Amino acid sequence: MTGHPSAAVVEGDGSYAPFGRTTATRHRERVRYDRETVHAVLDEALLCSVGFVVEGGPVVLPMLQARVGETLYLHGSTGSWMRGAAADGTEVCVTVTVVDGLVLARSAFHHSINYRSVVLFGPVREVSEAQEKAAALTAVVEHALRGRSEEVRGPNPRELAATSVLAVELAEVSAKVRTGPPVDDEEDLSAPTWAGVLPVVTGYGVPVPAPELPAGAALPDSLTGLHQS
Amino acid sequence: MTGHPSAAVVEGDGSYAPFGRTTATRHRERVRYDRETVHAVLDEALLCSVGFVVEGGPVVLPMLQARVGETLYLHGSTGSWMRGAAADGTEVCVTVTVVDGLVLARSAFHHSINYRSVVLFGPVREVSEAQEKAAALTAVVEHALRGRSEEVRGPNPRELAATSVLAVELAEVSAKVRTGPPVDDEEDLSAPTWAGVLPVVTGYGVPVPAPELPAGAALPDSLTGLHQS
Repeated sequence: MTGHPSAAVVEGDGSYAPFGRTTATRHRERVRYDRETVHAVLDEALLCSVGFVVEGGPVVLPMLQARVGETLYLHGSTGSWMRGAAADGTEVCVTVTVVDGLVLARSAFHHSINYRSVVLFGPVREVSEAQEKAAALTAVVEHALRGRSEEVRGPNPRELAATSVLAVELAEVSAKVRTGPPVDDEEDLSAPTWAGVLPVVTGYGVPVPAPELPAGAALPDSLTGLHQS
Repeated sequence: MTGHPSAAVVEGDGSYAPFGRTTATRHRERVRYDRETVHAVLDEALLCSVGFVVEGGPVVLPMLQARVGETLYLHGSTGSWMRGAAADGTEVCVTVTVVDGLVLARSAFHHSINYRSVVLFGPVREVSEAQEKAAALTAVVEHALRGRSEEVRGPNPRELAATSVLAVELAEVSAKVRTGPPVDDEEDLSAPTWAGVLPVVTGYGVPVPAPELPAGAALPDSLTGLHQS
């Protein structure tokens, strides 16, 4: 633990500096350090997986995230034992993965996944200041559904106090990206096997109104036009 | 580390026994220990997040998984430093999450996610026996796309040797499930705010043939009927 990373680790060209843990030993050509790629993955995925060490063993929990500038906010239903473990300064590893497609090769061996992932290491900071916490929670709601935060009742002081938000600075971070068709061995190319990519897409179903809602209640702006059947 | 868990931890009613780490401290009503729920989540999600401890710090990487009975096989493009860390007996935490919907409440505070997640703790076993490894890799391919393993060239001994597969037994495992509409505070129910659930669905796009494939090559059985536009 060496304290909060400094912005100085972002290099002049807008890329994050590679660290030992964010330097790939396999498929180096897939690794990216540019902010644009890292931000895009963090912004697109709804959930992240947050790993930390409890009594010497690994624990990984899904959490909601929202990026604000170079800070990643984490929010989840953390049990008390985790809150104890993820106190200020606790080292975490946050992993986010977006699956873009199944890569179907002629050989089982060359099957793969087209994906974009981010791995972020750093100490967490427990967000305690009310204004930052409120802004972070707004960002979490907006990240899940743009425009939603303006449609709802914001948190009151009691709710804010009951909500836990963690922050990790984007410094020791990298992305890994695989795109494109399968890469088969030369001798398999003539096989009569279909090969290619099956895109994986995430979309939305038809909104289901809450039971207490008046029949025929109009959809809010945040949902209008989102529906893909 | 107490060695490989025994099947004895599965209780008589087909449920997994709760352990300290798989006993929820919040939202206890969401926790499930029954095999059916745990298996369904592991089988539905394409990827898992695998956490382990390297030099005292947490590392979380996405990997492909496939369940065969009470064994979860893990396969991923692991760097050499991870392979060193994830040797036989290394304790891991495997987390799998399926998102079913955004829960849109009248208040920001009660926004939530409908999800099904599994958290599995245990030591990994490095699969070295050729027959088990081949079966595990077949399961990984079938898990990603049913029927695909029969359409492709299987691994040769060199490919098998170059592939790393880990196994974790399902013993210290639990699922957490949230379903249903938002749960708002009584005083918010009369607000003119739309509330409900926005389903999140994962589907497939139109298959993209590999560039070398003859024009008009027929789709294989594994892909026929999968396409949802």
